Amino acid sequence: MFLDQTYLFTPGPTPIPNKINAAMARPMIGHRSPDFSVLIEDVATRLEPVFGTKHPVMILTSSGTSALEAAVVNTIHEGDHALVIVAGSFGDRLATIAENYGAFVHRLNVEWGKSCTPEMLEAFIDELGDTPIKAVFGTFNETSTGVLNPIHALGEVVKTKTDALFIVDGVSCIGAVPVDMENDHVDILVTSSQKALMLPPGLAFAAFSDRGLQAIRECPERRFYLDLKRYVDTYEKQKSTPFTPAVSLIQGAQAVCDMIEEEGWENVIKRHLLLRDMTRAGIRELGLPLLTSEEDASPTVTAVKPEGIAAPDIQKALKKDFAITIAGGQKDLKGKIFRIGHMGYCTPFDVLKVLSALEMTLAKFGQAPRFGAAVKKAEEVYVKNV
Amino acid sequence: MFLDQTYLFTPGPTPIPNKINAAMARPMIGHRSPDFSVLIEDVATRLEPVFGTKHPVMILTSSGTSALEAAVVNTIHEGDHALVIVAGSFGDRLATIAENYGAFVHRLNVEWGKSCTPEMLEAFIDELGDTPIKAVFGTFNETSTGVLNPIHALGEVVKTKTDALFIVDGVSCIGAVPVDMENDHVDILVTSSQKALMLPPGLAFAAFSDRGLQAIRECPERRFYLDLKRYVDTYEKQKSTPFTPAVSLIQGAQAVCDMIEEEGWENVIKRHLLLRDMTRAGIRELGLPLLTSEEDASPTVTAVKPEGIAAPDIQKALKKDFAITIAGGQKDLKGKIFRIGHMGYCTPFDVLKVLSALEMTLAKFGQAPRFGAAVKKAEEVYVKNV
Repeated sequence: MFLDQTYLFTPGPTPIPNKINAAMARPMIGHRSPDFSVLIEDVATRLEPVFGTKHPVMILTSSGTSALEAAVVNTIHEGDHALVIVAGSFGDRLATIAENYGAFVHRLNVEWGKSCTPEMLEAFIDELGDTPIKAVFGTFNETSTGVLNPIHALGEVVKTKTDALFIVDGVSCIGAVPVDMENDHVDILVTSSQKALMLPPGLAFAAFSDRGLQAIRECPERRFYLDLKRYVDTYEKQKSTPFTPAVSLIQGAQAVCDMIEEEGWENVIKRHLLLRDMTRAGIRELGLPLLTSEEDASPTVTAVKPEGIAAPDIQKALKKDFAITIAGGQKDLKGKIFRIGHMGYCTPFDVLKVLSALEMTLAKFGQAPRFGAAVKKAEEVYVKNV
Repeated sequence: MFLDQTYLFTPGPTPIPNKINAAMARPMIGHRSPDFSVLIEDVATRLEPVFGTKHPVMILTSSGTSALEAAVVNTIHEGDHALVIVAGSFGDRLATIAENYGAFVHRLNVEWGKSCTPEMLEAFIDELGDTPIKAVFGTFNETSTGVLNPIHALGEVVKTKTDALFIVDGVSCIGAVPVDMENDHVDILVTSSQKALMLPPGLAFAAFSDRGLQAIRECPERRFYLDLKRYVDTYEKQKSTPFTPAVSLIQGAQAVCDMIEEEGWENVIKRHLLLRDMTRAGIRELGLPLLTSEEDASPTVTAVKPEGIAAPDIQKALKKDFAITIAGGQKDLKGKIFRIGHMGYCTPFDVLKVLSALEMTLAKFGQAPRFGAAVKKAEEVYVKNV
């Protein structure tokens, strides 16, 4: 019924636009060629507004986790104290990586499904007394719960209360939400390619504030592939990467810049807010409880905690009947929630698609049919905002 | 808001699946190479069930109109009598072509928006008395009005009442509707690539019944590029085409065969009926009058004759606000109707998309908002039929 079409609504990987696929199929070029230097400089500088940085964005050929690891190993040394905000499984992963490298990790545990408020962070820092915190690690958008943390307010607390670097995992929101590294007091911001940036997996990105860049430069050499200083030095000296990069993905990243500029960065941000609001309005209309509050809601992923029907059953039915892939819960939330990604190459019609499929799926599971009901609410949000 | 996405709902051209684009990007091969012989034999024979023929389907590199012209020039000579059923602008075009080649054309005019019934055809043949009709030309699916003519019943009349060949323009439905050339008494059936066959424009196809093939073979040589006998001979002798073909489009046609076989030909037919029923149920719910009756309704295109709002205004608003392209009316129906194509690479979600956009557009034009209403009806049709 749906031919070869499959509908990817996971919070990463996300669908790849044809334009970007076409760019990735361009003729291969050597990464020590002048053509590559032109390419990487173009991408590194055009991504600056997306990362809210004044410095070229460094591109690593590796996964999102490696980007987190790079953020750790380029700032933290054995015995250093690190404060990690843990409000979901990705915060947990950050803490694990830091522990792995011998840091004393102080976990600020936040209930999964809620954001970390500046008051929580301030109180936790107060509790730590005069512990010399080298870095505070936070998750911008907690993919596992669909929570967007208030990065600006948290950055203010870090700056006011500590001398620590503020290092942010932006994996599932950079490319969809506004950020200003200097103003938000974010020193290192990392993400990966397969989320809001509309690329296949394979690239990690790292951006720096003035202070973050200085910290990277001053960090003693004791790492190799993830040595961010090498990336900065090689970029500055020869406009290339220290190791062989995934050239075709970087060609694709150039098309990402084209697409973001064509839409307009402000419009990209607005679109994600609208996709969030449409999704939540529709889900609410179907009587499905949302995991997060309005204030905490992520513009890129919505978590739903159904009652009466098991979340994995809904997930399976959407896959089987409509070729729609959504995500389930992770760790503590496994089996309890499903998550709808609406980031990157996602339009209002895509949201209507998943809502319509949910309407039909709930009816299949015996609920009184609410055909068109969620779509109606989402359309109302759309017409009010456009 | 919709990024680089555009939504093509014209009754041709239609969207191209990625699989088919990928096939068309395969390395080029010479059309006199053994590889090409393998390719064209594969396509010509695998298309047989789609055209309901026992003979390989001939492939011309030309437009849909040229396929109609080929059907004329390979059967009609100056001074021959031809009966042409004219129930819309494409029937009219057939008649014009036949007249152009010096035929005495007897037009059976049917009100635009209605089908030609077997009774009408029988009465018209009776009126013509003992006029020696060489061929009866009919339009299977009248694209301009969204009418599917009852080809089997018309074929029965042609066979019972005349010795004429029955020549059918299948342009906007072959690949979406069942046909059996021997059983339906269709002798020549032509179509083009950019409709239900999911290809870009550029190819025309001609299929034959036993009797149609014999007529082609016996037709005296007096044409060149559109000489169907040359195509048949070259295919039989060397599995190639008489003239240089659009190789990449034929590579694409091979992927079309893959996709039709993967879905299952019977399922392709069912899907189009469902798309028709979903579209009509939604349109009806919005209070928009349908141009055609249930019995006459085409599985591939739906014509709507709005009241109170000008059809071109709806068409323009869908384009401007939602990047959705639908078609307007032609000739006598210009400015009075809009047409939604739902053929080829079209899924139930695509229908919901255009219905949702119509809901929002009608509200914009001042109608009381019916958000979700058409989608609801279409979903109900879907769940009842799947």
